[in-house]
Amino acid sequence: MRATTIHAPFDMRVEEVPDAKLQEPTDVVVRVVLACVCGSDLWAYRGESQRQPGQRIGHEFLGVVEEAGSGVSGFAPGDLVVAPFVWSDGTCAYCAEGLQTSCPQGGFWGSPGSDGGQGQAVRVPFAEGTLVKLPADAASDERLLTALLALSDVLGTGHHAAIGAGVTAGSTVAVVGDGAVGLCGVLAAKRLGAERIIALGRHQVRTDIARTFGATDVVAVRGEEAVAAVRELTGGQGAQAVIEAVGTEQSMRTAVGITRDGGAIGYVGVPHGSGTGLDLGVMFDRNIALRGGVAPVRAYIPELLPDVLDGTIDPSPVFDLTVGLEDVPRGYRAMDERTALKVLVRP
Amino acid sequence: MRATTIHAPFDMRVEEVPDAKLQEPTDVVVRVVLACVCGSDLWAYRGESQRQPGQRIGHEFLGVVEEAGSGVSGFAPGDLVVAPFVWSDGTCAYCAEGLQTSCPQGGFWGSPGSDGGQGQAVRVPFAEGTLVKLPADAASDERLLTALLALSDVLGTGHHAAIGAGVTAGSTVAVVGDGAVGLCGVLAAKRLGAERIIALGRHQVRTDIARTFGATDVVAVRGEEAVAAVRELTGGQGAQAVIEAVGTEQSMRTAVGITRDGGAIGYVGVPHGSGTGLDLGVMFDRNIALRGGVAPVRAYIPELLPDVLDGTIDPSPVFDLTVGLEDVPRGYRAMDERTALKVLVRP
Repeated sequence: MRATTIHAPFDMRVEEVPDAKLQEPTDVVVRVVLACVCGSDLWAYRGESQRQPGQRIGHEFLGVVEEAGSGVSGFAPGDLVVAPFVWSDGTCAYCAEGLQTSCPQGGFWGSPGSDGGQGQAVRVPFAEGTLVKLPADAASDERLLTALLALSDVLGTGHHAAIGAGVTAGSTVAVVGDGAVGLCGVLAAKRLGAERIIALGRHQVRTDIARTFGATDVVAVRGEEAVAAVRELTGGQGAQAVIEAVGTEQSMRTAVGITRDGGAIGYVGVPHGSGTGLDLGVMFDRNIALRGGVAPVRAYIPELLPDVLDGTIDPSPVFDLTVGLEDVPRGYRAMDERTALKVLVRP
Repeated sequence: MRATTIHAPFDMRVEEVPDAKLQEPTDVVVRVVLACVCGSDLWAYRGESQRQPGQRIGHEFLGVVEEAGSGVSGFAPGDLVVAPFVWSDGTCAYCAEGLQTSCPQGGFWGSPGSDGGQGQAVRVPFAEGTLVKLPADAASDERLLTALLALSDVLGTGHHAAIGAGVTAGSTVAVVGDGAVGLCGVLAAKRLGAERIIALGRHQVRTDIARTFGATDVVAVRGEEAVAAVRELTGGQGAQAVIEAVGTEQSMRTAVGITRDGGAIGYVGVPHGSGTGLDLGVMFDRNIALRGGVAPVRAYIPELLPDVLDGTIDPSPVFDLTVGLEDVPRGYRAMDERTALKVLVRP
């Protein structure tokens, strides 16, 4: 089969790899219908996260079950399914608590020895703990299918950030980061009843989407200027709930600066950089909490899915470029150069 | 009047200072009956926090109202009162929310221009927002009065840490730090229904108090050894709720190491050191939350006071040395040399 591999920074290839096939009775094989490129894939693309030469990549996909292992009763060939960005056994204490990202048997698509989402098919371990079935008729609705793909990562990750930030009905929320996750953070905050949502971002195409998703204000400057602007919008105090969806020192510093005393930062940007950007002395004096991390999106799909299906929320606008599988390298370039927000892949 | 002053590191004096007196209609003057020395006073004593030469010190006290300003209706001369370690106006949004430490008109006892608790009397600004009345008959009960003094800081701070760590009925809790705040963290966790409380500390006198306060296990090693020991006690996973009551890089690193995935660190140790001790990458991967900061103890006194009065909790054992006002410098030496856990001052 064909799949995307990464050989070195900026060296993405689409090549022949061994066919995905059942290895354990709890596996299924999914033929990928839609996949996409994640902002976190760019860390590998740019060489800031290490990968083995030839390693697979891509951790977001939905597709159709092609074959199911003998121990799988919940899925059958032909089922339309979405996969969260980690697999998990569905039976351990962490899975039971909804923290599937800490499942001892869990793992990330594209890690050595596993298939990646940016390919024709994927072997899914622990299918019953991992996959979620989608209505069959969604397959014929392009817009809906695209929206459902967001359940594999960015929508659940935005939701995790909103939960971490403590967003509830009536909240004032600020969102640092105008990538797909930040935008989904806006959407998630709106869904949770936030009254005021301040989106920080300097790319109008993106902040326009933020407004569509529910942002009431846009702050188009960075750093200290952004802190001053958010404070001015919030009576000098900052936002009670802050979503951090970038992961750099500067973005974290901005997040601390715009959080109201006693508030919380929900952080989902994978931490990068030499330091943390956290001024713990400031956080201490102002009782600012930090909550978040890698999102257990598997736990959130059952809650978010109905709202995507009935159109209450529609994350599909975060996808603004579609490529075929052979064109995935072009998709990476477009995201790296910021000419695309998030790239959809149709194998 | 006589009061304690700090002139340089290790140079504590008790000397004549201007009498405490009313300056604003909302003030009262309190004659100090009991005060004490805080672990955080040692940062100033050791020169790790800067003070102006001759600055007052001491932020924990209870006493008797001597004089009340014309705008004060809630307190009258003769009232027995306890003061939290910051004053606050009681009328702003932060005070209304129970985050009095962020009151824009608030301040710390002993800051330049204000009286400190380690003296004969204190001018209390915003008396009605700051002080809490105690039953008059408590004055004649030495043990109870000592226990009530803990409401001014260490008990409320331990409670804040427990709340930050997310302690609830049935929790498994680990407490980093065997000072008075850490021990009060044990007491607070027990009061909130924790089932298992693991106290980390290497001083048996202190860990014996921890056991009295409700600790079910004691880990008497540090660093990586402590992390291994707590993990062994918790089925390899760590504690869901961790109280950090030291504030050094090492203690924070230990706290991260012993927290279960998805758990929280409630931190109340004033942050010191060149870095934070927070490995944000680890916290991200494991969804560990960080909550806490300077404790709004004023908010907690109404909840904790009844339990202290009826003996449900008794923090008085954290005080193990009593000195008169003239002997305060000896008290600092004893705490600095760790021959005393927490020093009570009787002016």
